Amino acid sequence: MKAAGIVVEYNPFHNGHLHHARSAKESAGADILVAVMSGQFLQRGEPAFADKWRRTEMALANGVDLVIELPYVYATAQASDFARGSITLLEAIGCEAFCFGSEQGAIEPFLKSRQLLNKENLAYQQRIHEAVQSGISYPKAMNEAYQEVTGGQEGFADLTKPNNILGYHYIEAAERISSSMQPLTVQRIGANYHDPITEGLSIASATGIRKAFFEGGSLEELSAYLPAYSIEALQNFAKEYGRFGSWETFYPMLRFTILREKPENLRQFAEVTEGIEHLIYEAARKEQDFEAFIGRIKSKRFTRTRIQRMLTHIFTGFTWEMLKSFKQPSYLRLLGMTQAGRQYLNAQKKNISLPIISRAADLADNRMGKIDIQASSLYLLGLGSSNLKKEFTTPPIYFG
Amino acid sequence: MKAAGIVVEYNPFHNGHLHHARSAKESAGADILVAVMSGQFLQRGEPAFADKWRRTEMALANGVDLVIELPYVYATAQASDFARGSITLLEAIGCEAFCFGSEQGAIEPFLKSRQLLNKENLAYQQRIHEAVQSGISYPKAMNEAYQEVTGGQEGFADLTKPNNILGYHYIEAAERISSSMQPLTVQRIGANYHDPITEGLSIASATGIRKAFFEGGSLEELSAYLPAYSIEALQNFAKEYGRFGSWETFYPMLRFTILREKPENLRQFAEVTEGIEHLIYEAARKEQDFEAFIGRIKSKRFTRTRIQRMLTHIFTGFTWEMLKSFKQPSYLRLLGMTQAGRQYLNAQKKNISLPIISRAADLADNRMGKIDIQASSLYLLGLGSSNLKKEFTTPPIYFG
Repeated sequence: MKAAGIVVEYNPFHNGHLHHARSAKESAGADILVAVMSGQFLQRGEPAFADKWRRTEMALANGVDLVIELPYVYATAQASDFARGSITLLEAIGCEAFCFGSEQGAIEPFLKSRQLLNKENLAYQQRIHEAVQSGISYPKAMNEAYQEVTGGQEGFADLTKPNNILGYHYIEAAERISSSMQPLTVQRIGANYHDPITEGLSIASATGIRKAFFEGGSLEELSAYLPAYSIEALQNFAKEYGRFGSWETFYPMLRFTILREKPENLRQFAEVTEGIEHLIYEAARKEQDFEAFIGRIKSKRFTRTRIQRMLTHIFTGFTWEMLKSFKQPSYLRLLGMTQAGRQYLNAQKKNISLPIISRAADLADNRMGKIDIQASSLYLLGLGSSNLKKEFTTPPIYFG
Repeated sequence: MKAAGIVVEYNPFHNGHLHHARSAKESAGADILVAVMSGQFLQRGEPAFADKWRRTEMALANGVDLVIELPYVYATAQASDFARGSITLLEAIGCEAFCFGSEQGAIEPFLKSRQLLNKENLAYQQRIHEAVQSGISYPKAMNEAYQEVTGGQEGFADLTKPNNILGYHYIEAAERISSSMQPLTVQRIGANYHDPITEGLSIASATGIRKAFFEGGSLEELSAYLPAYSIEALQNFAKEYGRFGSWETFYPMLRFTILREKPENLRQFAEVTEGIEHLIYEAARKEQDFEAFIGRIKSKRFTRTRIQRMLTHIFTGFTWEMLKSFKQPSYLRLLGMTQAGRQYLNAQKKNISLPIISRAADLADNRMGKIDIQASSLYLLGLGSSNLKKEFTTPPIYFG
């Protein structure tokens, strides 16, 4: 049985994801599709719109055979660490290929870019460093350095596009762990990442879809953009919690958490650097509303994503010290499987190089796993749930 | 102008407090009555039922002329420190007498007890220490030691009664600061401290009254037990926040705060000792409901009050280090005054030995004052308020 891997957030699962899942399996000529999926907090530093169990259901209903949780440590990290964790897990579960969605749509430019940057690494890193020192954000610095190193020549990946950047880091990560997986990419189609929802198109961005939900758009209206099962799962989620995950929803607790700390103590949390703790504290003191709050902190130097990651770590109590203490994922937390997924696990047992964890209780003595459990509990409390047993009582979802 | 002082929480102000205020003024032959009142958190380790401003209004409407906030550091401390802070402030504002409510109802037994314990202090402390080591709670140990030292003789204060214990500590505190204030006591009448509300009696305990409120008893029914102005103030409070302060209300945020910390980090907060941090953490993990939560932590050794004080300090982020760094109150935070109160402040200026603070902004550089402001902000967030400016925008209440 040949497995192909993808890296996903499904926040929530929509028609664009369906296209990606189908194309990935097809282009890899795979029998089953494995998704490494972020848990309750995402790479842009946000609480997930729906919890990881609902998002697993959506995945299994739409072509994914195995869902493995990307540990918090990687799921909320900057692109290179996010990619390293994801690719390591796909390799560990025995995938023969991995396939990412990209604006580029072809794999050669990524390989060519990777080759160049590998060669010019020192000059490239030096340029980035200089640009960051001049006061611009890291992504922008990276982009400027990249333009210089490629010298405007054709054939390289366009690393100004968010999915191309992630794609580049997957390639890099696979190379670094000497993965034998074949790298593949499929073209992202339809809406751009940040486009608001557009009537008549059958693909809309996850951002646009969430916005429509928050603004009270009917689920029926949204049915052009999401598979039926996604709508059902989201309806069930809303019924269960009475709300969706977002910083708007979590802000009262985030604000309490920030104001309870001395500003200087905020510096201990991962990604909080360079005096920004005072800005964060003062903004929390003044602002009742999340948008106004983050508006006070954002700057040319600190992107919204970067700040949101700091906020995520403050919210979950995840420190620099914890961040620096992890080198490798050490388990495969199984969130769900189809019948084909289960067959694959049984058939490939001896080719799977990390332990498969089906129950949270088995992570209770694992330092990285304890962080996943903690983040999940705090996410549930942020949603106003009082049932924290869920993490322990929810078995892997079986979609027969 | 002669001022008499009382130490109060008014949680909320009821007919028993009215009786105490009137008797205090009368027995001292005073022109004005000064109340040192706890802020947003109370000595039994609880968030106040209504905020300090509403409780100030109730006080001023019912015979108190000046309300001074007892800083958080003292208001949430064990009896001896609570008494030391309170008595120091009453002395600082120039009171010539102080008067506490007691089950005893006469001052001589307190003086006699104080004299004896002063003499037998070493033996007394030794007995307490031994009893605590044997695994019983501090109050119980104190009581046993006291029984031994007095040898069952008559004429001593009965220190098994909660208000007598506080009274004893006031006397002790006054002696330690060489206060020239005359100590007075008035008999507490009517309901016992923990009695639930009883129809037909015009005095009910604050605990009983709060219970009736929480259980949705009508304010009209309660009018037998509270002055009309108290009912009005509580109605306004409920209108403003949609709830009252209590651990039931604050538990979701407390629980989030506890579960966000590593258990061993909980030990840094004031009063958290001897491995109880693990009990607290596990109880928070398991219980959705405050009563069930504290039920898991309470023991023969740790009384509910003691645990609630730990929880208060965890909630507000108040550490052992902060607790140990304060020796003396350094300001008189004026929460409210009547016309007579204002006249007194003007007339006695040179006899008042600490600065009178009317605006929170003037405490922004005072370490003890910053803790009051922080505790007040977190209390407001616990109530679901998003307006944290209140502490800074509320001037002393003037009741003309």
